[in-house]
Amino acid sequence: MTTTRTFTVVGGDTRQGILASLLQKRGQTVRVLGIGGETPPGCISCNGLLNAVHATDCVVLPLPCSCDGVFINIPSGDLKLSYSNLLEAMRPGQLLFGGKPDESLIKLALEKHIDIFDYFGREEFAIRNAVPTAEGALQLAMEELPITLSGSRCIVLGYGRIGKLLSHMLRDLHARVQVAARSQRDLAWIRTLGMEPVKYPHLSQVLSQADVVFNTVPSPILGREELQALKPNALVIDLASRPGGVDFATANLLGVKVIWALSLPGKVAPLTAAEIICDTILNMIEEVRG
Amino acid sequence: MTTTRTFTVVGGDTRQGILASLLQKRGQTVRVLGIGGETPPGCISCNGLLNAVHATDCVVLPLPCSCDGVFINIPSGDLKLSYSNLLEAMRPGQLLFGGKPDESLIKLALEKHIDIFDYFGREEFAIRNAVPTAEGALQLAMEELPITLSGSRCIVLGYGRIGKLLSHMLRDLHARVQVAARSQRDLAWIRTLGMEPVKYPHLSQVLSQADVVFNTVPSPILGREELQALKPNALVIDLASRPGGVDFATANLLGVKVIWALSLPGKVAPLTAAEIICDTILNMIEEVRG
Amino acid sequence: MTTTRTFTVVGGDTRQGILASLLQKRGQTVRVLGIGGETPPGCISCNGLLNAVHATDCVVLPLPCSCDGVFINIPSGDLKLSYSNLLEAMRPGQLLFGGKPDESLIKLALEKHIDIFDYFGREEFAIRNAVPTAEGALQLAMEELPITLSGSRCIVLGYGRIGKLLSHMLRDLHARVQVAARSQRDLAWIRTLGMEPVKYPHLSQVLSQADVVFNTVPSPILGREELQALKPNALVIDLASRPGGVDFATANLLGVKVIWALSLPGKVAPLTAAEIICDTILNMIEEVRG
Amino acid sequence: MTTTRTFTVVGGDTRQGILASLLQKRGQTVRVLGIGGETPPGCISCNGLLNAVHATDCVVLPLPCSCDGVFINIPSGDLKLSYSNLLEAMRPGQLLFGGKPDESLIKLALEKHIDIFDYFGREEFAIRNAVPTAEGALQLAMEELPITLSGSRCIVLGYGRIGKLLSHMLRDLHARVQVAARSQRDLAWIRTLGMEPVKYPHLSQVLSQADVVFNTVPSPILGREELQALKPNALVIDLASRPGGVDFATANLLGVKVIWALSLPGKVAPLTAAEIICDTILNMIEEVRG
Repeated sequence: MTTTRTFTVVGGDTRQGILASLLQKRGQTVRVLGIGGETPPGCISCNGLLNAVHATDCVVLPLPCSCDGVFINIPSGDLKLSYSNLLEAMRPGQLLFGGKPDESLIKLALEKHIDIFDYFGREEFAIRNAVPTAEGALQLAMEELPITLSGSRCIVLGYGRIGKLLSHMLRDLHARVQVAARSQRDLAWIRTLGMEPVKYPHLSQVLSQADVVFNTVPSPILGREELQALKPNALVIDLASRPGGVDFATANLLGVKVIWALSLPGKVAPLTAAEIICDTILNMIEEVRG
Repeated sequence: MTTTRTFTVVGGDTRQGILASLLQKRGQTVRVLGIGGETPPGCISCNGLLNAVHATDCVVLPLPCSCDGVFINIPSGDLKLSYSNLLEAMRPGQLLFGGKPDESLIKLALEKHIDIFDYFGREEFAIRNAVPTAEGALQLAMEELPITLSGSRCIVLGYGRIGKLLSHMLRDLHARVQVAARSQRDLAWIRTLGMEPVKYPHLSQVLSQADVVFNTVPSPILGREELQALKPNALVIDLASRPGGVDFATANLLGVKVIWALSLPGKVAPLTAAEIICDTILNMIEEVRG
Repeated sequence: MTTTRTFTVVGGDTRQGILASLLQKRGQTVRVLGIGGETPPGCISCNGLLNAVHATDCVVLPLPCSCDGVFINIPSGDLKLSYSNLLEAMRPGQLLFGGKPDESLIKLALEKHIDIFDYFGREEFAIRNAVPTAEGALQLAMEELPITLSGSRCIVLGYGRIGKLLSHMLRDLHARVQVAARSQRDLAWIRTLGMEPVKYPHLSQVLSQADVVFNTVPSPILGREELQALKPNALVIDLASRPGGVDFATANLLGVKVIWALSLPGKVAPLTAAEIICDTILNMIEEVRG
Repeated sequence: MTTTRTFTVVGGDTRQGILASLLQKRGQTVRVLGIGGETPPGCISCNGLLNAVHATDCVVLPLPCSCDGVFINIPSGDLKLSYSNLLEAMRPGQLLFGGKPDESLIKLALEKHIDIFDYFGREEFAIRNAVPTAEGALQLAMEELPITLSGSRCIVLGYGRIGKLLSHMLRDLHARVQVAARSQRDLAWIRTLGMEPVKYPHLSQVLSQADVVFNTVPSPILGREELQALKPNALVIDLASRPGGVDFATANLLGVKVIWALSLPGKVAPLTAAEIICDTILNMIEEVRG
């Protein structure tokens, strides 16, 4: 059913090698460049850029594409490769995939008439990636708490993708779950799905009962007042991307234990994380080719 | 916490009487006009329009406000009351609530400087109303099928509010659930939440396994090809509002059993349905006065 | 994998005809006698007892085998057949299956050196049969209550097979579930699985909150005191076999609505009920021959 | 409601100190001896055995009571105390509680006319203790696997207390769960609750699909044949008490990763574990005093 294409997988952490391997298992021809570690079985290791990129259909950059906006994210140190070097080697008609590509990369690609795709920006990527994030949050809570999640009192702040999945998992593990949200829409869903909705103005009142608070909102939400409301030994797990949602300095002063857990999917479930990237890229190709 | 206001509840079916009763139990002063049946305990029965509307804060029309766009929906036959008669009797500053108000009613209200609110159009109303709809669909399936839902093969078409709730309920009752959806976003959620996603182009292939198909999409989705793919004795429950999603004539010719189930909340759970209207109206007032 | 045997299916309600059909679909040779309705496709209709029983391997009587302890339960009226007539026609080595066989039938079979098996007495039968019973109870509650089960307050009396399944289903539909049980063992399970355990001495205190009470205990448990504790409009569904668990006379006096729901599987899900009998009989044969 | 009694809590690990604290919070007078660490707030630290045991109502030994059958299990090293020393200091009428008491301790107590109770042997203890065990198993699997549990293929061996809870948790996290069991009863429950039953003779066939195998059966069940059937990188978590259920030597030779996880409750959730002991002891006293 799927047409065979050639993919060149470049750089990145363990996930990228796994991604190469998964593409190969789904019948694609796969070349790898600078992925570190051993070459996955069935993949072709390339010595240089030209060889890697020359006759390929798709080039796949890691997540994130770059850490400095200039050079591609190649932690193995196998080679040093800039955005502009890569684009020079590519030809119009080739497809370029990357996670969170910089503006500069997008501009270079457009100039070269190369279609560039951000798999990180796809909604199905974000949804499926919420699973390893939510499971990673459960794992952290289980590791840190001296009690079981079953029967514990949990508060989840925010009811986006991660808040949804995490609160449902906690409910199904028989925790008592309260979820704080802003919109009447989210509050209605929370109630409808068997959890207790909390409006933000009432948050401080319920915080004092919590054994663990999971934050998913990337804006200051747990400030001095909220942190002081927590009972001793309550645990805070912040899943929000920078700048996070916790006043870390005050938490430190008050002795509140906070874990700021970023980029959980690649850490707790690299194989699943790679599979999600793989599926997303194949979805995007299918849509493009129609 | 809640200020006491005077509500005048007008017309409608059983739900409207229950709504009057619920508002009264939440500390509001409640007058009723043309609701049929006995006057709920603690509510004031009004003899005429002026008496009912004169010094009230809020007038609450039923769902739908009217069946003909001219007269208010008063099935009890207690009185005949047109939109324009009502608006003539109201004063600026009073609030008017109704379910699916007609354009003509909205125009009349604006002219009279009366704020008009459609509780049916609120998202929290639609979300919470999906619960009695989904439970009603389960009830119909249980009544009609000679097998248990547990272990049965169910297909849900569409993953909006009703599709979501219904598919989760079926999954939790241990049915084997497939859900058809269009967007990668929905397909990702379906998979993520432990069900099997189906793309519409592949629908006919899976239909032949289904014991029951629930449609939630209000556009022609089960045509001749799909209906012919069903196995004998498969049941179709169409939950979509007009025009529905089934080619009813062809279904009839082919001998496929189709139940078109409209307006389930008021039928299967009038008390819950009234409570949802009550909460929604109080939410709207809180926001307005906010 | 399964050896082909000849089954003679006798008497009974719709389930028995479905059972014949299911055995035939699983590759067995099937004869039917007095099952009423049309002969299922692929089955052989027998004109008389000798013809039906002569060279068969297994004779399958309905559930229950008899209503009077003398004649086999043949509601179709196709023929009148006594236990002793049947046994006279059978030969040693044939297997006889029945649901709740009378002592007299067992004695006759032993005298004739015919192995007799009660599928109704098998634990896997009772467990799987609890599913249609629990779903039937949900259906009744949905039909009778003016509220959704989601969000309702339910009390389940007893935590045997039906109490377990039913309380879990209610919990998963997001009802607030309390379960009354006697042993510390059951109370621990109830708590462990996310529901609220209630000890019987405290039952009257919690009954006043209930929207619906499901009884599964076949002994007097809802007497005057308990029935008086219920709030107006509370619904009682009694799933216990004779003598039931409700003081029906007092309930009637007090105006409490009680539904005594017996033999739900055959009524709400005859196909599933027949499948359970079929699987149980095949399990028993496998063990005997095994 | 609860009478105040004096408890003397002796020895043990962290759980024992938490237990003292919990008893104190429930209104009991609590003395501690040799529990290590700081004296919990509100508890009385005793200097010697006589002082500790003299006027107390209940003496509570740790789990297990002893590691050598002679001396009480006091890992803090605060004191060395033999069974016989303890019993000499106690008076008839006092109650003695312990986890897995040795035969020798039971004999000594009987001679002294002291009632001795094994909280570890209580069924409600075992049921509730299965929760931290099952959550601990989830935690281990999450830590070790490069994939999410959601969507993974899990096999659970055995359907006792731990097998039940663990398989339900995995199912609710949207893993694909197969459960192996022996009796038709268990196989019927497994199927009824939405999982896939596996008979032991068919185990090797399904093992090759598993990402993780959880064993709960304390007898040799994963031998050479089964271990060889596993796919590379499959994980085995053995939750069975000695001798476990895995041929560890062969697993080692074959390079199969096996984690033998014993005594999880005290390790992963000491507070919950102490609470379970506390509740069980109070249940036992209530039953004795009637």
